[in-house]
Amino acid sequence: MAEGSRPQLRSFVEVAPGSHFPIQNLPFGVFRRRGSPEPPRPAVAIGDFALDLAAVSDAGLFHGPLLSASPCFRQETLNMFLGMGRPAWKEARATLQKILSADEPVLRDNEALKKKCLVPMSDTEMLLPIMVGDYTDFFCSVHHARNCGFIFRGPQTPVNPNWFQLPIGYHGRASSVIVSGTDIIRPKGQGHPTGDSRPYFGPSKKLDFELEMAAIVGPGNELGKPIDINDAEEHIFGLMIMNDWSARDIQAWETIPLGPFLGKSFSTTVSPWIVTMDALKPFTCEAPKQEPEPLPYLAEKNHVNYDIPLEVWIKPKEQSEPSMVAKSNFKHLYWTLTQQLAHHTVNGCNLRPGDMFATGTLSGPVWNNHFKYHHKNTNLEVTVHEPESLGCLLELTWNGQKEISVGNSTRKFLEDGDEVILTACCKGEGYNVGFGTCTGKVLPALP
Amino acid sequence: MAEGSRPQLRSFVEVAPGSHFPIQNLPFGVFRRRGSPEPPRPAVAIGDFALDLAAVSDAGLFHGPLLSASPCFRQETLNMFLGMGRPAWKEARATLQKILSADEPVLRDNEALKKKCLVPMSDTEMLLPIMVGDYTDFFCSVHHARNCGFIFRGPQTPVNPNWFQLPIGYHGRASSVIVSGTDIIRPKGQGHPTGDSRPYFGPSKKLDFELEMAAIVGPGNELGKPIDINDAEEHIFGLMIMNDWSARDIQAWETIPLGPFLGKSFSTTVSPWIVTMDALKPFTCEAPKQEPEPLPYLAEKNHVNYDIPLEVWIKPKEQSEPSMVAKSNFKHLYWTLTQQLAHHTVNGCNLRPGDMFATGTLSGPVWNNHFKYHHKNTNLEVTVHEPESLGCLLELTWNGQKEISVGNSTRKFLEDGDEVILTACCKGEGYNVGFGTCTGKVLPALP
Repeated sequence: MAEGSRPQLRSFVEVAPGSHFPIQNLPFGVFRRRGSPEPPRPAVAIGDFALDLAAVSDAGLFHGPLLSASPCFRQETLNMFLGMGRPAWKEARATLQKILSADEPVLRDNEALKKKCLVPMSDTEMLLPIMVGDYTDFFCSVHHARNCGFIFRGPQTPVNPNWFQLPIGYHGRASSVIVSGTDIIRPKGQGHPTGDSRPYFGPSKKLDFELEMAAIVGPGNELGKPIDINDAEEHIFGLMIMNDWSARDIQAWETIPLGPFLGKSFSTTVSPWIVTMDALKPFTCEAPKQEPEPLPYLAEKNHVNYDIPLEVWIKPKEQSEPSMVAKSNFKHLYWTLTQQLAHHTVNGCNLRPGDMFATGTLSGPVWNNHFKYHHKNTNLEVTVHEPESLGCLLELTWNGQKEISVGNSTRKFLEDGDEVILTACCKGEGYNVGFGTCTGKVLPALP
Repeated sequence: MAEGSRPQLRSFVEVAPGSHFPIQNLPFGVFRRRGSPEPPRPAVAIGDFALDLAAVSDAGLFHGPLLSASPCFRQETLNMFLGMGRPAWKEARATLQKILSADEPVLRDNEALKKKCLVPMSDTEMLLPIMVGDYTDFFCSVHHARNCGFIFRGPQTPVNPNWFQLPIGYHGRASSVIVSGTDIIRPKGQGHPTGDSRPYFGPSKKLDFELEMAAIVGPGNELGKPIDINDAEEHIFGLMIMNDWSARDIQAWETIPLGPFLGKSFSTTVSPWIVTMDALKPFTCEAPKQEPEPLPYLAEKNHVNYDIPLEVWIKPKEQSEPSMVAKSNFKHLYWTLTQQLAHHTVNGCNLRPGDMFATGTLSGPVWNNHFKYHHKNTNLEVTVHEPESLGCLLELTWNGQKEISVGNSTRKFLEDGDEVILTACCKGEGYNVGFGTCTGKVLPALP
């Protein structure tokens, strides 16, 4: 049985049915007790609790060879632990599954220690769990690439020929990566001029979300030494949900010839919990067949994706409940995480623990109920799929050509007060491996 | 008289005529004594010495209000000092000019202390002086933009209309920023396919340098709070020389639609010394007139550049001496440093101390001795200027259409064993304010 599945395993900590965080998951994060002056500390999620790993470490419960004397859980980020690599990750997971299991008394029967170690999530403030050295954003969903290409370049060659030869990506901004729950201030910037006028300047009129996932790098590589595709897996610790907020009007005007810049760099939100690749193993599935065949440095023995259902919800300010506007799945990713990583380093570029690389918008394939849209310049038309599988408003509303329903309201792009909630959850045999949520509320632009 | 000029000031430390590092300069770096197990420490350059700021601090010579009790010079990078802002920078400069001056006995007449504080540069190993949070590369020389646009897009619209409305830039890779003297391993990657063939994969065939300068950010800004253009100056500590190594074949193939990625991320070299804006003040000059007038958020009261002559030299492996292949000047920069910084933050993007933003290749304007080149697709021709003012081989050889002389050899692109040496030096009244050199040697690709 694949490590990490163990569907029968149960914890003495009560875990509600449907919880994202049973003992099979144990995602890593960093928290602070609400109102506490203590420095932040690493944790794993179990049910409605954060298990304080500094406290577990202080109690001497990590007695494996790699972790017993390590200060990695007394740091304010996970970076040191990430850099220790899979042997340490496996040791941590084995220890934590053991001490949390229903059969193990060491924590279960020690009320004082339980009180120290298990912090109700309602008493925690979750923080960005990593210090992000560099953040790279890929563009690896073929459905998203096709739709964007159609909208911006037209239907003749919506996807540039290089797309099928390499995982296209660009460097993102690390400083503005923020944790779920942080408000987003609507950015100002220049938008495309109309005719001979000056460019528009002001609050973005086309604020969008992007449904993505981000992989977190464990051990890095030395500058000049590429990571072989078949070793790439050892360098990936886990995944987070990510909202790559985008100002489409700013992006469209600035992007030629050097790519996205201020249209993206104002904020990128990630979920507080990193779900480990070990916990995701039971949800492995075949990755899409690649045609043409990738070049040898991108050809991998183990060409897999993960079956991770994804949802996007929007809660307008004046509505009491959020409404689902899209659902997709990680498994549609054309270029796998390991291909992204091998490509990233093939030129010798060095990765460091805590680096992040994101998938790009995770749109899904054709559904029923086709829509027809016209391309504005060519008058050619394209059939678009049931929007439910599209991962951003640019695609869902075809760059503002139509509105989508959000509860009893409609949207072309995000409005002030909108809260965007991304969620992801794998369905196992009798348990989930979930990511919690990745949320952010749009505040008005500064005056 | 502008602070920092004081052309009559002399140090008791012998400074050779023509030295880049007289008492008027005092650029900041970080060094380690060769072979010493001690941690790295901050320094300023004076003549052929590094003045050890940890030792100066230990001796109690920083007695101003901001620095006397600060641990900023006991750090392994300058980031803490950068974050303290201009008042601390001015206090440090005043103290250092005083204790180094010919009239001041405190250091001059204390042999033991001098020995502790003044380390011959030949005994030092210079390190990357900052921890780079984010590195942004702008594209702000109109001459470079025109030439690249001609080569890649043709002569009709070599420069995209957005270029004259905003400083175009993109995020670079922070992890692979390295200090002068570090070897460059020729990167491998995919190059453009010819016809219906598969893309080329292997060592880059078009390895290039780019002559740039990088500004170093001091105090940052909070996420969501732009920096006003007229306050931008307070956030810039100083400048370094930068070589933005580029693999033109990799870049050309990957760049659509998201911009440069692996064609740049394999290495970016900076000079070890950061020359402060205070030391550069005497070399202020008017920046080019901008037409059209910039939008209000980019319109600045003090629209200035700096008169910094720049040179590029190449030393092929088999030659004993380097040859100059280009000279240019920082003063041609179309979008100023302060405009770059204000634009970067106008969407709320946060900067942090130690962030770097580079100018893009600093090519100069028209010279005499025109060359005529044909654009490969359109058969239109363009007049190009004496290559001496062009800041990269892409322009100097017009993407490999012609060869340039390098001593008794020729080059279209860089060959293995080539050492590229960038240098920059402002000429004052009887003194220089120089940057030293920014060097790197090309090693063959890994097998």
